[in-house]
Amino acid sequence: MAAKLGILAGGGPLPGYLVEACRAADRPVFVVAFEGQADPDVIGNTPHEWVRLGAAGAALDCLRAQGVEEIVMAGPVRRPTLKELRPDRRAAKFLAKGLLNKGDDGLLGGIVHALELEEGFRVVGANEVLGDLAAPTGPLGQFRPDQDVEADVAHGVRVLQTTGALDIGQAVIVQQGIVLGIEAAEGTHRLLERCRELRREGRGGVLVKLPKPGQETRADMPSIGPDTVTAACAAGLAGIAIGAGATLVFEQAVVVSAADAEELFVIGIRPEDYVEDYDSKS
Amino acid sequence: MAAKLGILAGGGPLPGYLVEACRAADRPVFVVAFEGQADPDVIGNTPHEWVRLGAAGAALDCLRAQGVEEIVMAGPVRRPTLKELRPDRRAAKFLAKGLLNKGDDGLLGGIVHALELEEGFRVVGANEVLGDLAAPTGPLGQFRPDQDVEADVAHGVRVLQTTGALDIGQAVIVQQGIVLGIEAAEGTHRLLERCRELRREGRGGVLVKLPKPGQETRADMPSIGPDTVTAACAAGLAGIAIGAGATLVFEQAVVVSAADAEELFVIGIRPEDYVEDYDSKS
Repeated sequence: MAAKLGILAGGGPLPGYLVEACRAADRPVFVVAFEGQADPDVIGNTPHEWVRLGAAGAALDCLRAQGVEEIVMAGPVRRPTLKELRPDRRAAKFLAKGLLNKGDDGLLGGIVHALELEEGFRVVGANEVLGDLAAPTGPLGQFRPDQDVEADVAHGVRVLQTTGALDIGQAVIVQQGIVLGIEAAEGTHRLLERCRELRREGRGGVLVKLPKPGQETRADMPSIGPDTVTAACAAGLAGIAIGAGATLVFEQAVVVSAADAEELFVIGIRPEDYVEDYDSKS
Repeated sequence: MAAKLGILAGGGPLPGYLVEACRAADRPVFVVAFEGQADPDVIGNTPHEWVRLGAAGAALDCLRAQGVEEIVMAGPVRRPTLKELRPDRRAAKFLAKGLLNKGDDGLLGGIVHALELEEGFRVVGANEVLGDLAAPTGPLGQFRPDQDVEADVAHGVRVLQTTGALDIGQAVIVQQGIVLGIEAAEGTHRLLERCRELRREGRGGVLVKLPKPGQETRADMPSIGPDTVTAACAAGLAGIAIGAGATLVFEQAVVVSAADAEELFVIGIRPEDYVEDYDSKS
């Protein structure tokens, strides 16, 4: 039997998918659910403990007491302020490195580093647990971008390469060569929502969602799911391009059938097919 | 008496400010108001003619018949689709250059170029007509950024230098080192609105608004006004940093008194004080 997996659970559905994957593989699991971040409905009756985000010490002790050696970080954590955080001693030691104001890449990379080198855990990416959820290369459904939309995909990749180097966003919407919106702190869903009103008439644009160049995907891997397809369709887009092997597709069968029904393409792309050297922080 | 000024009027209040400035200077003026773009209340009873955006020929003939030699482009024009546009022959000739899908800088720069070199008009920037509305260097009111916020201003300038080179947005909101939002097609007001919910507790961020590196400011100069201060205050920001000499401040007295009342800073900055070589498209 595989070793028990510890899930550090932030918001959204990802912790639930990880729990399901472990159950399917008969792998024991224990969830540390962060208060005010994780969704109680997602955690359900899985063995778990609620912990304040600032209580790093309690969280780690709890995982060790459960015999956990391998950890996965799952779901977005709304960035707390120091006041909300009330850090315990281990959290304070970590924060003393000034990571809280570092931007996502710095913060999450720092957490992975501390968990592995200082606390002795092994940190795995959600994609390693959910292997078959990572997007393949090529179209997931029946449709694929036409030549015009391909140009928008390429432009989106260039934009994300540049903004990603500044640690901003993982998603951009491009239509007819124009950048309608870039994601920063608001998340992909709200980006799609506002682009409903911003798009031009005529042929529809594309949502491009990729990890930032050099991103620590073990801490925060981009993902899409059925909701993304629904919102992209409502925004009138022609499709969605995601990083092959580097973006999780939740409920892939539902994603594909919804996309096919709406004549949307969903395609796994390799950024390096569009720009030189995507992964170097230019 | 100064020569008659032709105003190509898009949306927003800028055409009205230009008309006022001409009246104050006893300068005759004629407005070509673009249908579906310009605001009838702003145009009011100023001598004007409504013209379809696609009717470039009619617009230019009308300006010549009015004896106009000097033109100013005023206010944002919602980018039309070819179908909405129904271009006349001169508009079609212009569009044949493929500018409609070029992004703002390409499109607006192309229009200025065509007006001057092909049509023989002189194109001036709104700031030349509204000389005293361009932001000065330094604080406009009583407040100025503290050292922490200065770091956010510097980060905002770096972000805009990078995104501006991609012809995206003129505005960004940074708080405690984190980019809360970048403007693309949605405009500064909606950027500020969404950042109300995205900001972190604790000390407040800054809106940085600058022309893009190398931007043709004769066609589209960034601006702020009393509404910007109100929205920045509602978003909980500490202040607003704008390009000195390169951003228009409408109703400056109202802006300053509103900012002072809310303890917001409004400061004119020189991007080159924060980054090397802001104006080179890196």
